[in-house]
Amino acid sequence: MPTSSIVELTEALRCLPGVGPKSAQRMAYHLLQHDREGAQRLEKALGRALCVVHRCRRCNTWTELELCECCASPHRDSSLLCVVETPVDLNMMEQTHAYNGLYYVLMGRISPLDGLGARQLGLEALLSRALDGVVKEVVLATNFTNEGEATAHYLSEMLKAHAISVTRIARGVPVGGELEFVDSGTLAQALRERRRLVEI
Amino acid sequence: MPTSSIVELTEALRCLPGVGPKSAQRMAYHLLQHDREGAQRLEKALGRALCVVHRCRRCNTWTELELCECCASPHRDSSLLCVVETPVDLNMMEQTHAYNGLYYVLMGRISPLDGLGARQLGLEALLSRALDGVVKEVVLATNFTNEGEATAHYLSEMLKAHAISVTRIARGVPVGGELEFVDSGTLAQALRERRRLVEI
Repeated sequence: MPTSSIVELTEALRCLPGVGPKSAQRMAYHLLQHDREGAQRLEKALGRALCVVHRCRRCNTWTELELCECCASPHRDSSLLCVVETPVDLNMMEQTHAYNGLYYVLMGRISPLDGLGARQLGLEALLSRALDGVVKEVVLATNFTNEGEATAHYLSEMLKAHAISVTRIARGVPVGGELEFVDSGTLAQALRERRRLVEI
Repeated sequence: MPTSSIVELTEALRCLPGVGPKSAQRMAYHLLQHDREGAQRLEKALGRALCVVHRCRRCNTWTELELCECCASPHRDSSLLCVVETPVDLNMMEQTHAYNGLYYVLMGRISPLDGLGARQLGLEALLSRALDGVVKEVVLATNFTNEGEATAHYLSEMLKAHAISVTRIARGVPVGGELEFVDSGTLAQALRERRRLVEI
């Protein structure tokens, strides 16, 4: 039978998303046998992250400072505010190098099935952020899932009353996508939102 | 961009088997946002396991004591020595409640492609364990993979010279298995190793 500290480690590993009892057991034994150094690094990294990482006061993403890198930068266009669901989405946006504005991270999405409504998401904080007098345009970049779309709809309704421009990132055929393999919903949307190339 | 301690945590999580960059990132953000308590528990469990868990002096499995529970028990049949590849396999054997002997854990298998030969596995330790004068039968319970089979073959050859009985756990149709869905190799083996039910 496994010793109690291996049982504890196996149980503890199950806090990781997507890790069931079998994988947790495999992970625990792997660390003990093949990668004690890695386990030590993981222990330290967990301790450090838990200690120093908190929300950015301005955009709600994770940071070690008072303000995150984006919010603190003087080179960003503070008239643009992009709303994303998660810090990972923020990273994805940054990797495009196509956006130079600021962000607001919802840390979730409206999802009635999970009991997450507008109140649980703390959308008042977003509203007061958008109404700081500097923001001219809010770019909604929530996911194109049902919940992401519902969140975008709710936000656009919420912001409509406040004389602030609201946009949504475009939906369509992905770059490199072949029509043959694109689902018909995406294709229909791409057709509806077609851009004019030649004016006559 | 993610902060350095999130990057560190993400990197550190990749020491877990089967965790790539995307899952590691998802895990790091999940822990920070939804399960800081779990992360703390994991940090402590890692620290404790790394500190107290080491090899059993006698059977090579993981234990917190000088001897593991099995080896220390006076109720086990010390004339039987079951050889398994990993501590997880030992747990599986124990869960059958069909074996009351002792174990030896190889912590691996002979695998020339991974550069693991008889020397790397430290088979001399197994040999001296098997030749303690008390062991009468060595039960080979390595996996029925190519590498497990090769290991079993090597061990049986190694032990042959020492007037010690060597057995291999049976291969055949699994309990609850239907012939229709069993692969032909297994079925051929089950046929070759058929047991006599009625003596005439």
